[in-house]
Amino acid sequence: MRERLHGIFPPIPTPFDAATGEVDRPAIAANVKRWMTTRLSGILALGSNGEAALLDEDEGDVVVATVREAMPRDRLLLVGTGRESTRATIDASVRAAALGADAVLVRTPSFFKGQMTTDALLAHFRAVADASPVPVLLYNLPGVTGITLTMPVVAPLSEHPNIVGMKETSPELERLGQFAALSPSFRVLCGWAPVVQAALTMGASGAILAVANVLPDKCVELFDHVAAGRHAAALALQRKLTPIAQLVTTGYGIAGLKMAMELQGFSGGVVRAPLLAAPQKARAEIEAALHAVR
Amino acid sequence: MRERLHGIFPPIPTPFDAATGEVDRPAIAANVKRWMTTRLSGILALGSNGEAALLDEDEGDVVVATVREAMPRDRLLLVGTGRESTRATIDASVRAAALGADAVLVRTPSFFKGQMTTDALLAHFRAVADASPVPVLLYNLPGVTGITLTMPVVAPLSEHPNIVGMKETSPELERLGQFAALSPSFRVLCGWAPVVQAALTMGASGAILAVANVLPDKCVELFDHVAAGRHAAALALQRKLTPIAQLVTTGYGIAGLKMAMELQGFSGGVVRAPLLAAPQKARAEIEAALHAVR
Amino acid sequence: MRERLHGIFPPIPTPFDAATGEVDRPAIAANVKRWMTTRLSGILALGSNGEAALLDEDEGDVVVATVREAMPRDRLLLVGTGRESTRATIDASVRAAALGADAVLVRTPSFFKGQMTTDALLAHFRAVADASPVPVLLYNLPGVTGITLTMPVVAPLSEHPNIVGMKETSPELERLGQFAALSPSFRVLCGWAPVVQAALTMGASGAILAVANVLPDKCVELFDHVAAGRHAAALALQRKLTPIAQLVTTGYGIAGLKMAMELQGFSGGVVRAPLLAAPQKARAEIEAALHAVR
Amino acid sequence: MRERLHGIFPPIPTPFDAATGEVDRPAIAANVKRWMTTRLSGILALGSNGEAALLDEDEGDVVVATVREAMPRDRLLLVGTGRESTRATIDASVRAAALGADAVLVRTPSFFKGQMTTDALLAHFRAVADASPVPVLLYNLPGVTGITLTMPVVAPLSEHPNIVGMKETSPELERLGQFAALSPSFRVLCGWAPVVQAALTMGASGAILAVANVLPDKCVELFDHVAAGRHAAALALQRKLTPIAQLVTTGYGIAGLKMAMELQGFSGGVVRAPLLAAPQKARAEIEAALHAVR
Repeated sequence: MRERLHGIFPPIPTPFDAATGEVDRPAIAANVKRWMTTRLSGILALGSNGEAALLDEDEGDVVVATVREAMPRDRLLLVGTGRESTRATIDASVRAAALGADAVLVRTPSFFKGQMTTDALLAHFRAVADASPVPVLLYNLPGVTGITLTMPVVAPLSEHPNIVGMKETSPELERLGQFAALSPSFRVLCGWAPVVQAALTMGASGAILAVANVLPDKCVELFDHVAAGRHAAALALQRKLTPIAQLVTTGYGIAGLKMAMELQGFSGGVVRAPLLAAPQKARAEIEAALHAVR
Repeated sequence: MRERLHGIFPPIPTPFDAATGEVDRPAIAANVKRWMTTRLSGILALGSNGEAALLDEDEGDVVVATVREAMPRDRLLLVGTGRESTRATIDASVRAAALGADAVLVRTPSFFKGQMTTDALLAHFRAVADASPVPVLLYNLPGVTGITLTMPVVAPLSEHPNIVGMKETSPELERLGQFAALSPSFRVLCGWAPVVQAALTMGASGAILAVANVLPDKCVELFDHVAAGRHAAALALQRKLTPIAQLVTTGYGIAGLKMAMELQGFSGGVVRAPLLAAPQKARAEIEAALHAVR
Repeated sequence: MRERLHGIFPPIPTPFDAATGEVDRPAIAANVKRWMTTRLSGILALGSNGEAALLDEDEGDVVVATVREAMPRDRLLLVGTGRESTRATIDASVRAAALGADAVLVRTPSFFKGQMTTDALLAHFRAVADASPVPVLLYNLPGVTGITLTMPVVAPLSEHPNIVGMKETSPELERLGQFAALSPSFRVLCGWAPVVQAALTMGASGAILAVANVLPDKCVELFDHVAAGRHAAALALQRKLTPIAQLVTTGYGIAGLKMAMELQGFSGGVVRAPLLAAPQKARAEIEAALHAVR
Repeated sequence: MRERLHGIFPPIPTPFDAATGEVDRPAIAANVKRWMTTRLSGILALGSNGEAALLDEDEGDVVVATVREAMPRDRLLLVGTGRESTRATIDASVRAAALGADAVLVRTPSFFKGQMTTDALLAHFRAVADASPVPVLLYNLPGVTGITLTMPVVAPLSEHPNIVGMKETSPELERLGQFAALSPSFRVLCGWAPVVQAALTMGASGAILAVANVLPDKCVELFDHVAAGRHAAALALQRKLTPIAQLVTTGYGIAGLKMAMELQGFSGGVVRAPLLAAPQKARAEIEAALHAVR
């Protein structure tokens, strides 16, 4: 498993049917099959970009099953299973494993921010790792959760036999550098596309990038450049990718991501409320940014 | 309804059975019955202090049903029904109403922080208010959600016929003062005990306070003092209540609240992971703070 | 001194000559004389609103001398003397005292945020208080400095014989409530106009308010209402004052404050760069808000 | 000038005499002469690490004159001249130029945070750049100032003929990547040692690092590795340098930096209040971290 945690993974969106608002299984399957024609290392289902926070438990299971069915076994299926309670996180991890997840990605609980001490976080992740039938990746996304995993939590957890690595989603690379230095077998995946070249240079073994849904080949090419030591080429490509990567994340969010996917021939679909559709002007900006990458 | 939104409401904790970890219905019922012997105006179930974030949907329904059964109809049952998606919030509100909620309290969605624009928040709360069978209270708790409701959102929503007020949980009173000035029929409840005297003076019509679970009579007494213009007496009581109010919220969280309830003869019970039990030293501090109020 | 720290104080702006950009002494004197016809308890010179951060040391001395000359001795002259270094703070305090300051207001040093531990803050304020020829007021303004004075710093300092009180500039009143409860002789002045009624109710002995430059009588009237227990009248006046108080602080800053002063017949003058003049639309908004108070 | 803005620069501390607390000129000169035996590209005087915030204007001039005298003309002398007011910043820049500064580094004004709009920042930096006799570098250090320079400010300023680049002091590299991509002639210097390898890979032309005061050769070696495409060697060295770099900045601040300098045979000296001496335990930690680099 640890060896396979390298390269590029898209955190796939969940297409909804425009008429019913329900999860669109055929659209998911079609997207996955097309992604699988590229050299992506696998897929993350039910991440932030999968609107997992807006799905109910049954819908999440449907997404995982649909993705797994459309993917060959030799590509990694990562599934987001973080919940606020430890027991719901374990339940979700057990269900994901049963549906074919190769590993689970567990974000920090964050509702009770003031109580998420080092001890609380250690106990939570250890309980999940002990109970999960498949390996666990920690998920640090302080911009969303308001909780930051730091060395006093991550270092001890990196020694747990069922915790194989983490996703670090932040423009800050000081932490990522420290996590990547912990051990060669503790794999760090970068979740912030505008700094992915730098993260890979600092020891990340791969990346989970919204923009990889839209431009999978370009993202893999960037990864290859760094792996082969072609840093000048990597920087040139990074600079081309950054604008579109920003538009589909901090710029227009998932609505922007789905719009960009549609423009690239994937099924994007609508977003679920309270998310709003992207504004009119987004389309031209996204088209221009996509065009600039070619 | 609007007239009844005054006075003191406890945001009740959810006791769990120490052996099984499951919701302890008899304990809830016993607590509610005892609270109902006081002059509390009603109860908030499934608020933050109810560990609602750690309950699954079925458990939440059990809590609401249990509370309603133990409460006379003439006391208000408020139920927290905020979820990340608009449709799950509506579903929860419909279910709560069916189980006897008199109004629902809807916190801001917050996972997709960057996308929670004024337009998105307006659309979300309007959709919920349109669909909810019972009146809606907005719930602003920026310290937990990272999202702050401000006048450009609250002022238009205060005119919706099914939005009757809000809970403002913050030590900042500038916003509360503005909200309370919007209209006499838009009721503002304060959620931050150490400033409750001030909030009531600025126009709040009542309060939802963790410490009211522990010392309901004292909280009602403070409310009465302000209502009767006895501000010096109110200040003296406020100063006595602040230390215990802090210990059961920002100090030791829900674990501290449950410990304080046990010390007062209520059923507190354990907390659910990832929350941890209060540390050893908490007990003496809480006892001392309780003692100081008498 | 402690007994005189009550009532309303304006943190006076520093008028600059529009042609030369230099401190306009006659304008200061004229303003002070007019303020002294009201029941203001005194004046704060060289506070944040005095653009102290934009003055050099010599200019600051000129301001203090000019104000003192224009004020009767029985009104309090408070002077802001906080600097980043302890020794510069002491120097400024000694100079202010020599020029007639009755007390000095010392903001938290903040450049080296990461190093401003409880120990560092205690040592700084104690050194200043030991050396200052006149009493010291602590100045907490976290929104500007990024440093927050809390009980572990303020409680011990409140026992220093030469520290007579503090100014708390924040919409948060939990801290203010705790500080005001420390001791009747430790005087707390509120610096946030939209919550001043509440702060006075919670035990503040007075307030230092930008809006008091513009509407001194109305601010004194609000203070009197609270002191006399007329809380309903206080609330009504608070609600009238809040909009103009916001426009001259968080709304349009010092440029807005100076504009409002001009509209009321005081000398406002230009602001110093990098501050910019208020935008066109500010004038109508400020006029309307002033009109609404009458 | 622009071509010379590459490589490593130490932001030199200001040694104070332990007995008098005054600036220790001979110690400065001795340090500078020793740094000049290395391949450092130049020196930054009066930066944050120079305790510039704690010096008065005369002391600052003494520091600049002393450093220039001890440095050959072919090494760059950068001088921090940012002040809160535009005119004081210009004055300081003119004086620094007269004393031999090759360029000035101008941090964002930050006291009036709420008023530091894009327009205000543009006007400030343009006025300074127009008036400065030597080229200007922008200085972004959001962790200290609470103000963040972003593309809408930096992009237009990068076209000013007298603005030659900037220092970006943050662990976040998304902004740095964008700034470095603006134009090859707009030079970006990284100010955050734990991510310096990554920053150089993303297009920074050099770095200003506290740890370069302590280990100048190692920092130059890291720079050379990246410049020569030896990224694996760079990463290995980065990982060795990060712990000591953290101890002399976010760990123990300037007191830690001065202690580390003493251990390496430089003159460190005491810090000026309100900064406190490093705690006892710092020495062993710093020694160990220094040892680990060899």
